[in-house]
Amino acid sequence: MVAVLKPTVTDEQVKNLTAWLEGRGLTVHISKGESYTILGLIGDTSKIDTELLEGLEMVDSVKRISEPFKSANRKFHPDDTVVEVGGVRIGGPHFCVMAGPCSVESPEQILSIAESVRASGAAVLRGGAFKPRTSPYDFQGLRADGIELLLEAKRRTGMPIITEIMNAAHLPMFEQVDIIQVGARNMQNFELLKELGALDKPVMLKRGLANTLQELLMSAEYIMAGGNRNVILCERGIRTFETFTRNTLDISAIPALRELTHLPVVVDPSHATGAARFVLPMAMASAAAGAHGLLIEVHNDPKNALCDGAQSLTPEQFAAVTEKVGKIRQAML
Amino acid sequence: MVAVLKPTVTDEQVKNLTAWLEGRGLTVHISKGESYTILGLIGDTSKIDTELLEGLEMVDSVKRISEPFKSANRKFHPDDTVVEVGGVRIGGPHFCVMAGPCSVESPEQILSIAESVRASGAAVLRGGAFKPRTSPYDFQGLRADGIELLLEAKRRTGMPIITEIMNAAHLPMFEQVDIIQVGARNMQNFELLKELGALDKPVMLKRGLANTLQELLMSAEYIMAGGNRNVILCERGIRTFETFTRNTLDISAIPALRELTHLPVVVDPSHATGAARFVLPMAMASAAAGAHGLLIEVHNDPKNALCDGAQSLTPEQFAAVTEKVGKIRQAML
Amino acid sequence: MVAVLKPTVTDEQVKNLTAWLEGRGLTVHISKGESYTILGLIGDTSKIDTELLEGLEMVDSVKRISEPFKSANRKFHPDDTVVEVGGVRIGGPHFCVMAGPCSVESPEQILSIAESVRASGAAVLRGGAFKPRTSPYDFQGLRADGIELLLEAKRRTGMPIITEIMNAAHLPMFEQVDIIQVGARNMQNFELLKELGALDKPVMLKRGLANTLQELLMSAEYIMAGGNRNVILCERGIRTFETFTRNTLDISAIPALRELTHLPVVVDPSHATGAARFVLPMAMASAAAGAHGLLIEVHNDPKNALCDGAQSLTPEQFAAVTEKVGKIRQAML
Amino acid sequence: MVAVLKPTVTDEQVKNLTAWLEGRGLTVHISKGESYTILGLIGDTSKIDTELLEGLEMVDSVKRISEPFKSANRKFHPDDTVVEVGGVRIGGPHFCVMAGPCSVESPEQILSIAESVRASGAAVLRGGAFKPRTSPYDFQGLRADGIELLLEAKRRTGMPIITEIMNAAHLPMFEQVDIIQVGARNMQNFELLKELGALDKPVMLKRGLANTLQELLMSAEYIMAGGNRNVILCERGIRTFETFTRNTLDISAIPALRELTHLPVVVDPSHATGAARFVLPMAMASAAAGAHGLLIEVHNDPKNALCDGAQSLTPEQFAAVTEKVGKIRQAML
Repeated sequence: MVAVLKPTVTDEQVKNLTAWLEGRGLTVHISKGESYTILGLIGDTSKIDTELLEGLEMVDSVKRISEPFKSANRKFHPDDTVVEVGGVRIGGPHFCVMAGPCSVESPEQILSIAESVRASGAAVLRGGAFKPRTSPYDFQGLRADGIELLLEAKRRTGMPIITEIMNAAHLPMFEQVDIIQVGARNMQNFELLKELGALDKPVMLKRGLANTLQELLMSAEYIMAGGNRNVILCERGIRTFETFTRNTLDISAIPALRELTHLPVVVDPSHATGAARFVLPMAMASAAAGAHGLLIEVHNDPKNALCDGAQSLTPEQFAAVTEKVGKIRQAML
Repeated sequence: MVAVLKPTVTDEQVKNLTAWLEGRGLTVHISKGESYTILGLIGDTSKIDTELLEGLEMVDSVKRISEPFKSANRKFHPDDTVVEVGGVRIGGPHFCVMAGPCSVESPEQILSIAESVRASGAAVLRGGAFKPRTSPYDFQGLRADGIELLLEAKRRTGMPIITEIMNAAHLPMFEQVDIIQVGARNMQNFELLKELGALDKPVMLKRGLANTLQELLMSAEYIMAGGNRNVILCERGIRTFETFTRNTLDISAIPALRELTHLPVVVDPSHATGAARFVLPMAMASAAAGAHGLLIEVHNDPKNALCDGAQSLTPEQFAAVTEKVGKIRQAML
Repeated sequence: MVAVLKPTVTDEQVKNLTAWLEGRGLTVHISKGESYTILGLIGDTSKIDTELLEGLEMVDSVKRISEPFKSANRKFHPDDTVVEVGGVRIGGPHFCVMAGPCSVESPEQILSIAESVRASGAAVLRGGAFKPRTSPYDFQGLRADGIELLLEAKRRTGMPIITEIMNAAHLPMFEQVDIIQVGARNMQNFELLKELGALDKPVMLKRGLANTLQELLMSAEYIMAGGNRNVILCERGIRTFETFTRNTLDISAIPALRELTHLPVVVDPSHATGAARFVLPMAMASAAAGAHGLLIEVHNDPKNALCDGAQSLTPEQFAAVTEKVGKIRQAML
Repeated sequence: MVAVLKPTVTDEQVKNLTAWLEGRGLTVHISKGESYTILGLIGDTSKIDTELLEGLEMVDSVKRISEPFKSANRKFHPDDTVVEVGGVRIGGPHFCVMAGPCSVESPEQILSIAESVRASGAAVLRGGAFKPRTSPYDFQGLRADGIELLLEAKRRTGMPIITEIMNAAHLPMFEQVDIIQVGARNMQNFELLKELGALDKPVMLKRGLANTLQELLMSAEYIMAGGNRNVILCERGIRTFETFTRNTLDISAIPALRELTHLPVVVDPSHATGAARFVLPMAMASAAAGAHGLLIEVHNDPKNALCDGAQSLTPEQFAAVTEKVGKIRQAML
């Protein structure tokens, strides 16, 4: 960490600040220029509150050299984390496709979709029970009943399931859920993250619509700091000025995250683009950029789906995606 | 609501869709063009799920004419809502300044700041007990103890208090809190909003970093749909590409929200700019643009504050703000 | 085009507006609702100025159904445009790699890079002579001398060349340049676009940092409206809140543009990411998403390059890119 | 400037880099940490190309402490620049309102508007002759004829005039124009800026839709580096995700620019909001935040204006703006 002090700083102030920093276990290198004095801080700076330091009157600016996340940081854990769940591996050399409907609607619907996506190569069944909707008047999901239907589909097909949590008070319902999803809107719901950190169940954390990669990793750090190291990151598009696609899928986040962290990185092209016809090219691009997996919406009858029909693939379209993505993966060996 | 159908639509499909829409209580006007067919939907369209409609294969696009929010909509409630709390009025012709430290730190600190901001014209005392911090390693607030210190300051000074909630499970601690604040990161924590909708206590809802005005109003609608009509909106800066200020304070949101809704609109220039020296001009601009109030961070010793010291005013600087803002308000009569 | 009229509109006003629109060759379908009147405008609306229409007092809002671009529109030209230059084809089934240094620096440098990129499969030589730099104190390129060096490299290697124009007054120097590049900062320099429209030389138009796909196509339309149909579009990253990569490469722009237009779409992963280590994954992702080509910075000695060294590949790294991208292209057949 | 070197750097490399930097007139302070070596560079770093330095393999990152603009920098010119034109002063303690139509349409129109805005307190007449339009099919302005009409209005009313230039080749037509405006889309048309730098005529430089304050100042620097110090900066809204207003007026740019530079800062609330009804509150907010002036669109018949009618004020509405803004200015004394 480098702290640049203002031209007006006195020797007394430098001495006091240095003492305070050394008291926090850091070594301080002082470099005096004509106008600015620069402090190089050596040691474990991850627990120094940058804003607090910048708040000091004598400080002009502060620059981190090392990242403020530790558990998620690849520098301290060079090897890829592989999350295992119900015989499925996510991360490292493995590629995992999770598929299913935006909303669980009925026993027949979820079972039929589960069977068809499994046949096309999906390893994990996704399905929404608790649905975050912008409007209180929109369909909010089957909630507890939706979880029950997912569990029934799991028993019938043997597929592990992933579904979204919106409230820590619902955790008891998620006991047999294999992967708990934290949605983009809750990425910085720190109270929820802390509770998930106390579990030993895999958590898939979606990047918020306007959150930086560093903020995503700090949210993963909230979960990992609690002891739960089974975190999967998910890029799902960010909010930009472009409105032709619903959001802008940040594919460069894939190699960037793989450099910064050892955690698996999957991509959700369905929510990112909001349009079924763009799911295939974006799935292929994600695989080519090095993603560890995909999260794809599939519905047996998209035009009558209770939510997000516009972005759902038919089972046939989904089969084409897994086939073409498989060829891309082959080409990368 | 206007639905544009694709050129490939058949008469049969138009008939079926029209019947389905009429079944939902709408009147449908059909306008056939050379290539596109346009349906004008008349009636209460606020409960129609736009995405569902756009998901139908035959539909090209959908455009809302009326807004999807009802309780918050000025069209249906032309008069300004005035929220009253402990003798203080927020909204309509009233102007309310809420001030206090980012974090409650000690009994002496909060009481001393409370007394000084009251003397300068603040009507409500703000102070953070539960602090949403990007890093799990940063100071998280005094939590329950912080609430206790705020309540003690309330008893001593008679000022109503406002503080942030991060978890619905903490609600019992907020029983004597006068205004509950929902922070920007929780603006779309719909589960929390629903629980606040069941109270009759005023809620101040901060706009999320990347949320549109319409999304802010839909989140207010979540609270109001539950029966709680005491909602105060707060603009606190949005995330843009500009990095010189921490966020970009969207001052045009003030007249825009005042046109769209009858709810009070206050502004937080401290978090928006992240810099104490910009709080005065942004407070003056907010007043001149028609804000109903301000939320300002004040600390007796900003350079030693436990959080956000860089953006906190000293009591003397705060007194200058209330004086100059008062003159602006005078000039607007 | 759909125009929604305000509730306060009178029959007289509707009659006048309808007459005015019919006078512009449009057929008008009127649909009267309880509160809003909706006009469906049928015919060639590409020459109607939407803002002018929205400016009328009686008009609430206007929505285009058909796009405002015609020459670039795939609807009117279903087949892919293939731009041919010096025996090289760009567009349709062809894949074209353009490579070379950010700045032309010396005869030896440009010739040596040209030969090495040609050996690795590049078909077009790129090189900057006129450099748009944020600071007037930064290196501005060799300018006219740079063009001379490029032409010399073209004569020696037989490769067609592409280089950026910043000023229409420089056009005489570009006579033997094969493809003229318009940089992101000049995407809406309409005066320059008009002059390029009068040529019959291929133009590569880069998307502006904050421009929508529709604006990019409208700028292509400026060139095409002048009679020059040899336009190549280039996605090179957009400006977002994320700062880890220099810009955010919008890979979904590839399938989106291919749907909207028949023009070739190439990608510049070097400028988008600003980092050599991300060029390979982004090049692979671009190919997998359906790009017609790539524009890549290569330098024989990146760490001593006069500009953009950080994002330049060595010739060896570039050879790896063409090899791996070739495999991706293979897998897509 | 601070350069952080990578952990892998050798003593030899540090020695070479230090020699290279000292050769450029800088003093180098070396601070060696456990993993990183930090160089503090003292002296005139404004002419060091940051990207070039970051491009060196051994360099991890570079941080500027002093800004890369010199002529525009308040640190080197503490006193406000006051631009004088035709007896009108812009900058310092003066407040200047420029008003007129988006497009010059006819002799009667421009003269009638000129007289009415002058009567309401406008000091400078604005009017568009060359119009940058997104579509080649939209009205492009009266061009040379428009300049003639403006000059005629200037002769009749005595008001100095401001109008936009889009092409340096048009400069001869601008000889009697008092202030040349560079539009947002040309803010980084560096070739145009250089030509304006060779004049001694005032230039008003509008901030680009997606440009940072530092980039705006670097573009001002292009003009000033050529010797022309009469630059006026104009904030006119930036592009964000919010679509309710056309752009987001960045009012915090006013105090930020006034801190960074001595140049005058004016605001264009008409283009920023795109809606006449938001011009008054945004004009008042701009004045309260410390702007040196306003640029406002006024039309005698907005609903029949040839462009931007939706955002133009009637002369009566404009009179209300100058009156209320005058009161805000009064309150700030």
